Amino acid sequence: MSLRTPLTTKLGIRHPVLLAPMDIVSGARLVRAVSEAGGFGILGGGYGNRSWLEQESAKLKGLSAPFGIGFITWSLAKQSELLDIALAARPRAIMLSFGDPAPFAPAIKEAGALLICQVQDEAMAVQALEAGADILVAQGTEAGGHGASRTTLEIVPAIVDRAAGLVPVVAVGGIADGRGLAAMLMLGASGVLLGTRFYASQEADGADEAKRRICAAKGGDTFRSIIFDLSRDIVWPAPFTGRCLVNDHARRWMGREIELLQQSRAVAPGYLAARASGDFDVAAVIAGEAVAFIHDVPPAAEIVERIVTEADQIVQGRRNSSLSSAL
Amino acid sequence: MSLRTPLTTKLGIRHPVLLAPMDIVSGARLVRAVSEAGGFGILGGGYGNRSWLEQESAKLKGLSAPFGIGFITWSLAKQSELLDIALAARPRAIMLSFGDPAPFAPAIKEAGALLICQVQDEAMAVQALEAGADILVAQGTEAGGHGASRTTLEIVPAIVDRAAGLVPVVAVGGIADGRGLAAMLMLGASGVLLGTRFYASQEADGADEAKRRICAAKGGDTFRSIIFDLSRDIVWPAPFTGRCLVNDHARRWMGREIELLQQSRAVAPGYLAARASGDFDVAAVIAGEAVAFIHDVPPAAEIVERIVTEADQIVQGRRNSSLSSAL
Repeated sequence: MSLRTPLTTKLGIRHPVLLAPMDIVSGARLVRAVSEAGGFGILGGGYGNRSWLEQESAKLKGLSAPFGIGFITWSLAKQSELLDIALAARPRAIMLSFGDPAPFAPAIKEAGALLICQVQDEAMAVQALEAGADILVAQGTEAGGHGASRTTLEIVPAIVDRAAGLVPVVAVGGIADGRGLAAMLMLGASGVLLGTRFYASQEADGADEAKRRICAAKGGDTFRSIIFDLSRDIVWPAPFTGRCLVNDHARRWMGREIELLQQSRAVAPGYLAARASGDFDVAAVIAGEAVAFIHDVPPAAEIVERIVTEADQIVQGRRNSSLSSAL
Repeated sequence: MSLRTPLTTKLGIRHPVLLAPMDIVSGARLVRAVSEAGGFGILGGGYGNRSWLEQESAKLKGLSAPFGIGFITWSLAKQSELLDIALAARPRAIMLSFGDPAPFAPAIKEAGALLICQVQDEAMAVQALEAGADILVAQGTEAGGHGASRTTLEIVPAIVDRAAGLVPVVAVGGIADGRGLAAMLMLGASGVLLGTRFYASQEADGADEAKRRICAAKGGDTFRSIIFDLSRDIVWPAPFTGRCLVNDHARRWMGREIELLQQSRAVAPGYLAARASGDFDVAAVIAGEAVAFIHDVPPAAEIVERIVTEADQIVQGRRNSSLSSAL
């Protein structure tokens, strides 16, 4: 059983399921597990911690299954030498999110890697295509972590239209099961990228308590704001904000973002200490609206298997009881 | 060609496409056009204007195709005699949104009509099922007009799970084409309810300028707030807010909602005058994120035909080029 799409062909993978390059959470162990299960693991290069990147990418050398490495573009621009470290690991693709990919495209292409660009609107899609993107990731506001305001249901077809069949489009935001994958295929996407669903996996480098809170959270328990960025004294460029589980700290600062910005240097040490100690009443659990559909912490391979099996059954009409007869 | 589902069976219609009971916009002419095209027209009872309801529902008497009549539940509660006027037109269903349907369920059932309840979260779904709802409409935040915050991609499967196969679930919010219908069927919905798409139809009782602005608007040009309610001196109960096109008036009051509330009695006359005169730089064009996919003002029958044809082709795999082979 497999769902072959232009995405699986392009990446040389069995299943159209990509791991989001979650900062800290998507380490080599999780990347390996997703890629070996037939999906596409993408290492979370994040803001660019050199020693972490060297250590984790070294673990991926020699992995026979294709994998990728992801960066926050505007952060990579401050230390572009990290790209060389990433490319030395021979990833099948580099994924860039949140910023202009053009300065990095030549080196990626020269190294023989594909360029995956995550976008949140049509202008970013055009910018990415002009830079030579081989794959576009259309991110809806449901996604955990950084993103923008348009919803997956609306942004995915909009980017599919903009891609005009030139490159495959991957959907991200609010997807955690086979229903979501099947729905995205209907919208014209060639696959999905999953963050929160893989956070709650055995191989994810996240705190057990964070995983437990993701499993316990219900639909509507996340929100999008700039509170967790301000709390660690980081100001992201517009239009990006971050989605996480609502917690005590978030409730304390909601609607007081300007005050928090003014106090961020005073707040940050306590916030970072809470993060280090795993106090998630203060530190944010970065998670998307897909928490509604996440109730366990299985091995990543089982997640891939479940999603593609369910999606295949739905697409084949075997499980979608609501569609009693088509045609 | 038809997409039969438990919804089409229950309502006795050919196509799983319902007209949203848009206040003012969904008059008898549009209801008739949608129902005669094989969809399900629902008259926009709205806040309950008695003479309008008598006039429009009278036009529907004797319509051979099934149709419905919709109300804002909390407003109907203030003048429950309107339900008798509606039921006298022999609708196949009454649709109730935004409030407890229980007080009205017995009269609806006694009249032999079905009860359709629109919900925005699981607790409302449970309340509706306990009241005897025959059909649930799961509304995502993408929808135009009043609604709440959870997205269609997340709320639809959540409500499908809650309905547990007992009643069909209809998806609304961000849907305007066959891709959207096909995607919602994959999520387990039995059909879709469309507002903005039918607003931009020839038979809709909306201003031509409003329809023109819907066609011109792009993805991301709508926003959800309480500004247009406050501007006409109406305070809706939580958690409901309203989505409309961003315009000059909205930009003027964004972030100043408390001040607008304090001034609403002074602002309202001018706002209502602008609405009456069709000045949509001030008056809101009530519309959802589906504006991204709406570029023309065809007859309603053509809208129904297009959507079901496209959805059928996608579900059959004939047009979904991204899914090169499933199994």
